[in-house]
Amino acid sequence: MNSVIALLGDFAETERNEWLNHLRAAMPNEQIQPFVELNPTQKKSVEFAIVANPDPAQIAQLPNLVWAHSLWAGVEKIIANFGQGPLQIVRLTDPNLANLMAEACLAWTLYLHRAMPTYRQQQQTQTWQQLPYIAAQDRTIGLLGLGKLGTAVAQRLLANGFQVAGWSRTPKLLAGCDCYNGAAGLDQLLARSDIVIGLLPATPDTAGLLNRARLARLKPGASLINFGRGSLIEQDALLEALDSAKIGHAVLDVFDREPLPKDHAYWHHPQVTVLPHISAPTQPHSASAIVARHLAEFRQSGQIPETVDLVRGY
Amino acid sequence: MNSVIALLGDFAETERNEWLNHLRAAMPNEQIQPFVELNPTQKKSVEFAIVANPDPAQIAQLPNLVWAHSLWAGVEKIIANFGQGPLQIVRLTDPNLANLMAEACLAWTLYLHRAMPTYRQQQQTQTWQQLPYIAAQDRTIGLLGLGKLGTAVAQRLLANGFQVAGWSRTPKLLAGCDCYNGAAGLDQLLARSDIVIGLLPATPDTAGLLNRARLARLKPGASLINFGRGSLIEQDALLEALDSAKIGHAVLDVFDREPLPKDHAYWHHPQVTVLPHISAPTQPHSASAIVARHLAEFRQSGQIPETVDLVRGY
Ligand SMILES: NC(=O)c1ccc[n+]([C@@H]2O[C@H](COP(=O)([O-])OP(=O)(O)OC[C@H]3O[C@@H](n4cnc5c(N)ncnc54)[C@H](OP(=O)(O)O)[C@@H]3O)[C@@H](O)[C@H]2O)c1
Ligand SMILES: NC(=O)c1ccc[n+]([C@@H]2O[C@H](COP(=O)([O-])OP(=O)(O)OC[C@H]3O[C@@H](n4cnc5c(N)ncnc54)[C@H](OP(=O)(O)O)[C@@H]3O)[C@@H](O)[C@H]2O)c1
Repeated sequence: MNSVIALLGDFAETERNEWLNHLRAAMPNEQIQPFVELNPTQKKSVEFAIVANPDPAQIAQLPNLVWAHSLWAGVEKIIANFGQGPLQIVRLTDPNLANLMAEACLAWTLYLHRAMPTYRQQQQTQTWQQLPYIAAQDRTIGLLGLGKLGTAVAQRLLANGFQVAGWSRTPKLLAGCDCYNGAAGLDQLLARSDIVIGLLPATPDTAGLLNRARLARLKPGASLINFGRGSLIEQDALLEALDSAKIGHAVLDVFDREPLPKDHAYWHHPQVTVLPHISAPTQPHSASAIVARHLAEFRQSGQIPETVDLVRGY
Repeated sequence: MNSVIALLGDFAETERNEWLNHLRAAMPNEQIQPFVELNPTQKKSVEFAIVANPDPAQIAQLPNLVWAHSLWAGVEKIIANFGQGPLQIVRLTDPNLANLMAEACLAWTLYLHRAMPTYRQQQQTQTWQQLPYIAAQDRTIGLLGLGKLGTAVAQRLLANGFQVAGWSRTPKLLAGCDCYNGAAGLDQLLARSDIVIGLLPATPDTAGLLNRARLARLKPGASLINFGRGSLIEQDALLEALDSAKIGHAVLDVFDREPLPKDHAYWHHPQVTVLPHISAPTQPHSASAIVARHLAEFRQSGQIPETVDLVRGY
């Protein structure tokens, strides 16, 4: 008999029950219990947990916990709480999630490419005016981050006729995409992109990366989409660049504080599209299947799947 | 020496000059003149004209005109004026235009699929709320019209993960797409589509096709995109269906009268997105190349390319 698996996270109750149903269906031979329903003996037996931003006080009550599988792709909160070890953390990498992010990046790239914000403003003043059309093959989309998500996004944008450039920490090769790395590479990518898409994890190195100096390197009127993490952007610098029309439009799905506070300037800015962290929602069905596969491999081999690098922060 | 080619249309002067430049560059051995610059002898010599909604009074001054190549894909106005013959009319079919329409249909399908109108409304009230996500493979897009444009649109939507159904006058086979025809076929397509896209020409048969009875067959909350011609839709019936939320949203690029009159209800309706006929603008570069190819074939063989069917109206 395998030890009990604990489920811990900052879920609402209906959400937690939905996850339990999916996880139990994906692992019918495992015993999965929400943390609050574990008795003291069970808590002692837990070696493996499934987590979504778990409470450190609860984790501390699982003395034999060896590893945890995150249901989210972004792990900055877990690392902040457990980055000193010894807990080993596996994050979610789900092709279904990458596909969803590819769809979102294409959707909001087309939103900017086909001038939807401008046509909406024209509608408000009953203005019938055709804007010049620039072909997709004459637009370069610059991706910050060429990981699981960025790679899928690059392929989807290429398939739909855009030019694509990408930037990562280590050098990459990706068919059809011009790949950059390093500080000089970032400057080159920013200078040639019509739309820049943020798909970077929140780490010490990426915090405030798009500061005043780097935003100033963008082409006049270029636009920004941020679907990675809010910490990437220096907010005041972005607002200034929007106000002076150096940046045409910003589509923001992630923020330093979420929900975005009611009095934040982004809500009211005519050149900002605010989204409530919806670009690529984790799908319980496919995510549960991936956790199940990882656990089955562990049960068979005793090997923990690839874990998050606590030093680099992703 | 070939006879002079006349260019006639309702262009603004800068637009006419742009076309002249592109057409002359594509046919350096032909003599292309705007109608207003022709002398009486030249007018008599004209056998072939390049036209964009030409003035019948001007066409009447070209006694030896045999055929005309339209720069637009839609020919309802030319047919209304010259449908009694003997002028033979060739319309523009341009793969580049079909590609642009495919992009437009994908762009505004994603606009609806990713709930952009609702998220915009939420932004106006600083509302942070995540809507349930429905996967592309669980959405059926119904295309009215499977011609040059509809076929390219179907392929693009399929490549991006949507289910696609299509409707045409004659039966069709198109890989991956469920094809319907006839009145019963239309009813079936309307009943299963989450988004219906109009890509039909304006003809006596398509005028008012989406009337009250047919709009009532749509799934509750389904949406409509009309990128073909405005005459397809009974306006009062659409406004009623939007007001009672039977239809979720309408994206309209084409109208009975264009520009859309300033006092039209569409401009102000929260569930209507008004576009100023921009979904697939003719590109002078590729269109000129197509006219040039057709003319070269005619010069060589004496054969006029496939002409518009004046009886069926497209
Ligand atoms: N908005 C949403 O709905 C949503 C949904 C899911 C995920 N996300 C966010 O998206 C992020 C990316 O996800 P992923 O699965 O693609 O992560 P990933 O596979 O770990 O890829 C991260 C990418 O960022 C690059 N990178 C990291 N630090 C860098 C630095 N300092 N300089 C340059 N490049 C750097 C990496 O470079 P190397 O390739 O060289 O390592 C890699 O290409 C997640 O961390 C999460 O925060 C958001
Ligand atoms: N908004 C814009 O920017 C824009 C740009 C370009 C074109 N357009 C419009 O788009 C229209 C379509 O262009 P296209 O190049 O695809 O035309 P097309 O190749 O002639 O195709 C027309 C399609 O409509 C179908 N059809 C026509 N009458 C029908 C009827 N009574 N019942 C059912 N199906 C019918 C045809 O059926 P069959 O295949 O059986 O013949 C065909 O599939 C043009 O006529 C033009 O008005 C708009």
